[in-house]
Amino acid sequence: MASVHSNEDLEAKDMDSRSLSSSRNHSQGAPYIHKVGVPPKQNFFKEFSNTLKETFFSDDPLRPFKHQPKSRKFILGVQAIFPVFEWGRDYNLLKFRGDLIAGLTIASLCIPQDIGYAKLANLAPQYGLYSSFVPPLIYAIMGSSRDIAIGPVAVVSLLLGTLLQDEIDHVKNPDDYRRLAFTATFFAGITQATLGILRLGFLIDFLSHAAIVGFMGGAAITIALQQLKGFLGINNFTKKSDIVSVMQSVFRSAHHGWNWQTIVIGVSFLSFLLLAKYIGKKKKNLFWVPAIAPLISVILSTFFVYITHAEKDGVAIVRHIEKGINPPSVDEIFFTGHYLAKGFKIGVVAGMVALTEAIAIGRTFASMKDYQIDGNKEMVALGTMNIVGSMTSCYVATGSFSRSAVNYFAGCQTAVSNIVMSIVVFLTLQFITPLFKYTPNAILAAIIISAVINLIDFQAAILIWKIDKFDFVACLGAFFGVIFVSVEIGLLIAVSISFAKILLQVTRPRTAILGKIPGTNVYRNIQQYPEATKVPGVMIVRVDSAIYFSNSNYIKERILRWLVDEEEQLKEGYLPSIQFLIVEMSPVTDIDTSGIHALEELHRSLQKRDIQLVLANPGPLVIDKIHASHVSTLIGEDRIFLTVAEAVSSCSPKLVEEP
Amino acid sequence: MASVHSNEDLEAKDMDSRSLSSSRNHSQGAPYIHKVGVPPKQNFFKEFSNTLKETFFSDDPLRPFKHQPKSRKFILGVQAIFPVFEWGRDYNLLKFRGDLIAGLTIASLCIPQDIGYAKLANLAPQYGLYSSFVPPLIYAIMGSSRDIAIGPVAVVSLLLGTLLQDEIDHVKNPDDYRRLAFTATFFAGITQATLGILRLGFLIDFLSHAAIVGFMGGAAITIALQQLKGFLGINNFTKKSDIVSVMQSVFRSAHHGWNWQTIVIGVSFLSFLLLAKYIGKKKKNLFWVPAIAPLISVILSTFFVYITHAEKDGVAIVRHIEKGINPPSVDEIFFTGHYLAKGFKIGVVAGMVALTEAIAIGRTFASMKDYQIDGNKEMVALGTMNIVGSMTSCYVATGSFSRSAVNYFAGCQTAVSNIVMSIVVFLTLQFITPLFKYTPNAILAAIIISAVINLIDFQAAILIWKIDKFDFVACLGAFFGVIFVSVEIGLLIAVSISFAKILLQVTRPRTAILGKIPGTNVYRNIQQYPEATKVPGVMIVRVDSAIYFSNSNYIKERILRWLVDEEEQLKEGYLPSIQFLIVEMSPVTDIDTSGIHALEELHRSLQKRDIQLVLANPGPLVIDKIHASHVSTLIGEDRIFLTVAEAVSSCSPKLVEEP
Repeated sequence: MASVHSNEDLEAKDMDSRSLSSSRNHSQGAPYIHKVGVPPKQNFFKEFSNTLKETFFSDDPLRPFKHQPKSRKFILGVQAIFPVFEWGRDYNLLKFRGDLIAGLTIASLCIPQDIGYAKLANLAPQYGLYSSFVPPLIYAIMGSSRDIAIGPVAVVSLLLGTLLQDEIDHVKNPDDYRRLAFTATFFAGITQATLGILRLGFLIDFLSHAAIVGFMGGAAITIALQQLKGFLGINNFTKKSDIVSVMQSVFRSAHHGWNWQTIVIGVSFLSFLLLAKYIGKKKKNLFWVPAIAPLISVILSTFFVYITHAEKDGVAIVRHIEKGINPPSVDEIFFTGHYLAKGFKIGVVAGMVALTEAIAIGRTFASMKDYQIDGNKEMVALGTMNIVGSMTSCYVATGSFSRSAVNYFAGCQTAVSNIVMSIVVFLTLQFITPLFKYTPNAILAAIIISAVINLIDFQAAILIWKIDKFDFVACLGAFFGVIFVSVEIGLLIAVSISFAKILLQVTRPRTAILGKIPGTNVYRNIQQYPEATKVPGVMIVRVDSAIYFSNSNYIKERILRWLVDEEEQLKEGYLPSIQFLIVEMSPVTDIDTSGIHALEELHRSLQKRDIQLVLANPGPLVIDKIHASHVSTLIGEDRIFLTVAEAVSSCSPKLVEEP
Repeated sequence: MASVHSNEDLEAKDMDSRSLSSSRNHSQGAPYIHKVGVPPKQNFFKEFSNTLKETFFSDDPLRPFKHQPKSRKFILGVQAIFPVFEWGRDYNLLKFRGDLIAGLTIASLCIPQDIGYAKLANLAPQYGLYSSFVPPLIYAIMGSSRDIAIGPVAVVSLLLGTLLQDEIDHVKNPDDYRRLAFTATFFAGITQATLGILRLGFLIDFLSHAAIVGFMGGAAITIALQQLKGFLGINNFTKKSDIVSVMQSVFRSAHHGWNWQTIVIGVSFLSFLLLAKYIGKKKKNLFWVPAIAPLISVILSTFFVYITHAEKDGVAIVRHIEKGINPPSVDEIFFTGHYLAKGFKIGVVAGMVALTEAIAIGRTFASMKDYQIDGNKEMVALGTMNIVGSMTSCYVATGSFSRSAVNYFAGCQTAVSNIVMSIVVFLTLQFITPLFKYTPNAILAAIIISAVINLIDFQAAILIWKIDKFDFVACLGAFFGVIFVSVEIGLLIAVSISFAKILLQVTRPRTAILGKIPGTNVYRNIQQYPEATKVPGVMIVRVDSAIYFSNSNYIKERILRWLVDEEEQLKEGYLPSIQFLIVEMSPVTDIDTSGIHALEELHRSLQKRDIQLVLANPGPLVIDKIHASHVSTLIGEDRIFLTVAEAVSSCSPKLVEEP
């Protein structure tokens, strides 16, 4: 055992060159000079306000206001709410050139998409265009993302359509249906703005990345399946969205319900769109090919139907789009009555999903161009945009993945590209909507299918499988929930699994047995470092989480079970039994009253077994509470050490000197 | 800077005696020999089943069954479900003596309490006694706590009474009220047993200790206030339980509604009971004084009323208690219809609260006598007891704080004390209930008041204030919720605050800036150790939590904000700017796909600022996922170190050698 002893000595020297003399004779029980620091006492209100600040104002939004004169503060305040006054001052012709090209590109992409997405939401086609006119203008003034392209999106349209259809049938009662849609849009905006104002933006972080990947993939497949109606020219189509009902609908109508002319148009243009997509993917500078392909398809197919009068052979066409810009719709919102609560409920769900998508897009592109997005401010902008939208005949708009990517590659510089797009949509509404009369529905279906294919992210799913199996289960759960049941159920599964994961993490934190890495004074998890050796007579456990009421019992019992296991093994090997239990507290960032009780109970249980409890490196909050609760006197002040190495060298000498 | 340099060298030597030669010339860039360990690869199913096991079977319940013959396994199985077969075999006369005394003591305490508690639940007095007859017998066979005293308790009675009264008025429709009470009891039992069987016992850990303290205190005050009706002899009393309504009721009836004879009886016996309590507290061996005081009060006051015929002067008396033991009540449970769902809902809430109380009691006394309680098994026992109870005219029974304490001090040895109590209650029901006819209600009120006073735990509240301010807010919230609104609202507040705390912990984990403790190679939080010094050109951040989707964005942004703050300070002091950011990962026990993305984004942001990201001591799961996602190649394998000290000494030399 002499070698161990000398090793111990070496460690002690390592620990502290100043305390060399005192450490060297630690076998005589000399005290260590490294005390565990107790942070300066804070009063209650300071502590509480710090916690509040870190929770709700962690981004320190008032920072630029500090030490500024009043007039400057006012300008900064206006700029904070309307970022256009900030970036607008540096705006120049070069930037405008980029925005103009990007704006025209996304406009050509959004017009056919909007008409299709409005159908997904069971609304007349012009409502899709309306939603690409007003909301982008509001966002351009208030939003802080430079790359996001605002408008209706596929997933939110589908979700809104499903939820609204559950309440009112859009065929039997289109007026109330539309009114409920505006009501939901209004409350979606209210939800978004409220979350931003109350600085509760972090709530959307509760939908995990994996759950979103699964949900989006499932929604994309569901949307694509829905398009089979337009694509195959089926008249009697199910109103359910699950894959089983849809496939039954498709096969039941196979003999008499399909229209071959429609299929020919659909298949040829879908091939064209996918080819364009492929070209755009291969050569980044040809990004405009897939971007304008949809508009070209619409023009070509409309012209084709117009000259051949294919609509007389059963090719379904758009027939009618209302001409002119958004009519006001304030009167149409249900502010009272039975549908108020329903609109509110649908609005909250749609608003949250729209928010998640917009914030994810904003963050992605912000990190690519390395600028910061203020999530809470962004929510206020999106919320205002939807509130105004609901009063001008728009339904829920948000950031679109596909159009934002096109916007980015087309070289957008600021939110002006959204204004350009908005103007193009305005001109379309004013002058050329009648031309869409002969546009075949199959083209819209093809455009939607080619757009949503991007939402199926196989590579992300594979990466999730590789990195975290539990995440993959969440991803699959959301995916199958959407395609086999419905969008709401998929969303519910996604949220539940995400929450279950959080609860699991909180109730069942990890613990590890530490061993000494040979030749160092470093103690590490023996599962990760198999070469690490246990110190005879000492068990070192690391607790890997704050100790709270939700896990204090588990942690106490887990430590005692480690001990029982260890003692059984030692007995079998006729090794000396355990005399010290060192709890490495480095990862324990906080402890509450239940945790303190658990420590006391642990100490008591160990006392009955003649084992001494020793703590290593409790953090600032923990040491504070250990003192406040007098657990430190219970365990013994001299049983609390700065490092595991110091703790071991105070416990071990006795054992080492045994024969 | 020479001194720093030599210090660095010293550290490197400290780190590893074996790598002395390689470390000494680290300024020439020689590699370190301490690799971060990668744990042996586990396959998916093993990993998944380990997680499942740790979550649901963390107590390893099948452990004793290992390596046993079949017959032994069968016996162990029976013993596991009916612990009576385990402890019954060692039962002897000495133990019985302890149980007999304890059983008689708690019986004398429970009989008057039961009658009073039944009134709290708006049920006839005999139902309280019924609930102290059957449930304790079932528990004695199946339960694993040796000290718990089973029967109706004040808080659950009040909660049940409030929830039932919300559905059915007990005065107008007593039969349906009673039937709903049995239905709720049935589902309370089903809930408890199901939680146990599904091993979801950890769910009750989500009610924090602090919230329970507040809830119990509030409930005690509410119950005491309710007793003013019986205590002051008021006839028209509010049905609400909040303090405002009750005090209004009391003052409104002050002129004509109070009965002085009742008050005299009440006050004198309450003083007697409190005196007895005080004596019991002062001298532990006089524990029986407060235990039998209630029965003595009942006997004395009943006799007094009987001879003086005080009931003719307006002293309210019990009047009638049904004679005989529990009638069957299976037919009375609503298994169909409108009330099924309501009974279910009430049952789930009452069952959870009852469970929380029983498990808390079981754990407290088990830790005092140092034996283990199996939470899940206990839940099955309590659930079965309530299911059987609901079929034999009992309402929800659970462990009583006050009676369990008396049981413990009276020297109970096993659950036989519950059987003894049950037999006494049986004899009471069979023979002496008619004698309670003249018992004044004021006495029952006094008994309940003196019993619930114990539930107000000032010292616990003070300790909570000292240890954790947030916990104290939860405690106060639950307390005021109960006394100013209602029991349900108080409970809801308690649960919500507990959950909010968990979510807060998960979304806003702590981060800390580390510094070097002078003369050591130990790096610690500079807020806790003000003497710790920063290393020039290097910023060291510790992340104090697993990095999950719920916090990955926050952590990334927090680290970048630390960096901005630090760089501003450095600029002001004309100090060298930061070139390395070391993230100490020791407390990061796990990372998911969102966390990996956050790391990638952090790396990208840092690259744009010419700062190198360095990781120190990633744990087994983290290093695994860093490799799986190829983040390790992105950051550089040689940028991941075993300790902060090694990371610093690889970063620092260049800086140190600058002029």
